[in-house]
Amino acid sequence: MSRFWSKVVHGLTPYTPGEQPKLANLIKLNTNECPYPPSEKVLQAISQAVNGALRLYPDPDSAALRQAIADYYGIGRDHVFAGNGSDEILAFAFQALLNHEGPLVYPDITYSFYPVYCQLNGIRAKHLALEDDFSLDLSKVPADAGAVIFPNPNAPTGRTVSLESISTLCQRLPERVIVVDEAYVDFGAETAVPLVKDYPNLLVVQTFSKSRALAGLRVGFAIGQPELLAGLERVKNSFNSYPVDRLASAGAIAAMEDRAGFEHDRQRIIASRTWMTEQLSALGFNVVPSAANFVFARHPEENAEALAQALRERAIIVRHFRLPRIDQHLRITIGTREECEALIQALKEILA
Amino acid sequence: MSRFWSKVVHGLTPYTPGEQPKLANLIKLNTNECPYPPSEKVLQAISQAVNGALRLYPDPDSAALRQAIADYYGIGRDHVFAGNGSDEILAFAFQALLNHEGPLVYPDITYSFYPVYCQLNGIRAKHLALEDDFSLDLSKVPADAGAVIFPNPNAPTGRTVSLESISTLCQRLPERVIVVDEAYVDFGAETAVPLVKDYPNLLVVQTFSKSRALAGLRVGFAIGQPELLAGLERVKNSFNSYPVDRLASAGAIAAMEDRAGFEHDRQRIIASRTWMTEQLSALGFNVVPSAANFVFARHPEENAEALAQALRERAIIVRHFRLPRIDQHLRITIGTREECEALIQALKEILA
Repeated sequence: MSRFWSKVVHGLTPYTPGEQPKLANLIKLNTNECPYPPSEKVLQAISQAVNGALRLYPDPDSAALRQAIADYYGIGRDHVFAGNGSDEILAFAFQALLNHEGPLVYPDITYSFYPVYCQLNGIRAKHLALEDDFSLDLSKVPADAGAVIFPNPNAPTGRTVSLESISTLCQRLPERVIVVDEAYVDFGAETAVPLVKDYPNLLVVQTFSKSRALAGLRVGFAIGQPELLAGLERVKNSFNSYPVDRLASAGAIAAMEDRAGFEHDRQRIIASRTWMTEQLSALGFNVVPSAANFVFARHPEENAEALAQALRERAIIVRHFRLPRIDQHLRITIGTREECEALIQALKEILA
Repeated sequence: MSRFWSKVVHGLTPYTPGEQPKLANLIKLNTNECPYPPSEKVLQAISQAVNGALRLYPDPDSAALRQAIADYYGIGRDHVFAGNGSDEILAFAFQALLNHEGPLVYPDITYSFYPVYCQLNGIRAKHLALEDDFSLDLSKVPADAGAVIFPNPNAPTGRTVSLESISTLCQRLPERVIVVDEAYVDFGAETAVPLVKDYPNLLVVQTFSKSRALAGLRVGFAIGQPELLAGLERVKNSFNSYPVDRLASAGAIAAMEDRAGFEHDRQRIIASRTWMTEQLSALGFNVVPSAANFVFARHPEENAEALAQALRERAIIVRHFRLPRIDQHLRITIGTREECEALIQALKEILA
């Protein structure tokens, strides 16, 4: 605490990102990055943008990037908003769209940045308890919700909700903003983007950090009707006019255009997830059905934190959350097939 | 206005950045970018970072970048904070350090983003009127200030304050945070960085967008004692964990290390500013003494907005502000020598 800090700072418990250790030979299965590098097409597009034009500010409206995203989804560019990673977009959304009289409703087990955004913005939160199997029943969103946010697939569970249930929720609460955080959607859930045309209260947020292998460039986007996006724009333009830099934009545009590379890597990750789920089950783990690039698993007889520690001693890092209901689970990112095999081998040794 | 927007959004008048037109043959003297490209060393460093590691998140603490800045200034890395452009750092500072009971004091003529940050954070502002010659008298900062911010050199005037007056202010208001926004400091003002060790209430903010020719990469930094930086960190980590991407970091590190390239371009810009000041004066303009990479000038007999329009018709863009006291001035970025000559030639034709 400091006399120099503004009042809001004193009450903050900042988000703790998964660690980014610098050891070279580490198997890093803790932050859900893509195990495969960006494609050659993407790297070439970035390389071509490394030139004297870097002396100039980027386009504050990210028009070319938004157009590439719009083209991918077959929607208008005025339905796309871009930012410095989906975390920045979520931060804008909490400030611009989710702060209302009624409480913001989100799952009790979910992305742990949500409560932090609530603290920063003084938003009252109301938790919607996941079912015992970690499924999310959107029909239980209370009628007094001021707004709603949830990931689909949910993190760290990997479970999905149906488009039908999202659609029903948007209809049931037409005056409330519903944000679907689709950071992991490309690994097996259905995107809610096609619903946006029907629901002016629906905002879909995605990222280039997972399925598009560009976590190092920090690009995310939101899709919604212009009325919602105008709220995001106003906050963005009261905060930082140019959040997406020239190289990030070049890389993200190429990643959107390289559909074959995207599809290839996506399918490889899905196949490895199937394999890893089978292997973990064979070792006695209960594995939550995942539509993401990670699995969420517990072993009925082993302490999760001790398991994570034993893996770390073998240079494999997974994510453990000291949180209610999930402190006996591990979240394990789907790595390359070799990394998945190394994880399973290590677990076999630990459990032996 | 929209029923979906949070309350704070309705009251915002967002910042309007200088336009970024896409015409190729335009002479762009409106956003104070560096007229010279980043050096070959910088471009090479970025190119080398265009590789598969872009799939991984950047270091959330930007340790290597902060170390490069610390080395440049001969201070500890724990005295350096990095962000997505100095605008983002200013946004964090307004939220984390400048929101107090007493009003935030800043010059009546200054960077036009400050009032926007105040709106976004609900901060009460108190204007300190510049003298008639646009100089800033820090002894007139009122004793009831909750915090103070000013650019040095000031924008859009280009005038400086002395380190002695900053030092005196820090001593006079030891319980108040003083932010010196040094976006343009390398073009002729003295940096307040050496004062930081003496004043725990002093924060110095700089950018790579002007003197370091990397506006397209979005990197800024702040220097202050760890107690102040901890306030920024808490807000940053409640907003977006990884604001500085891998390529921005690589470019900024190289730019900090390439002292010869930096010095060469800096001196060229200062020389062109001297030339431009002489030429404008010869054309009858009153030119405010500038320590920045722009000049602020008015012609006693010509309407400033009409002049800006006439320049635009000749494909030269300068910045005009429709604001009290300065609506008859133009802010003209120092371009290459050729661009400066084209501007003077165009003005000669317009005034003829």
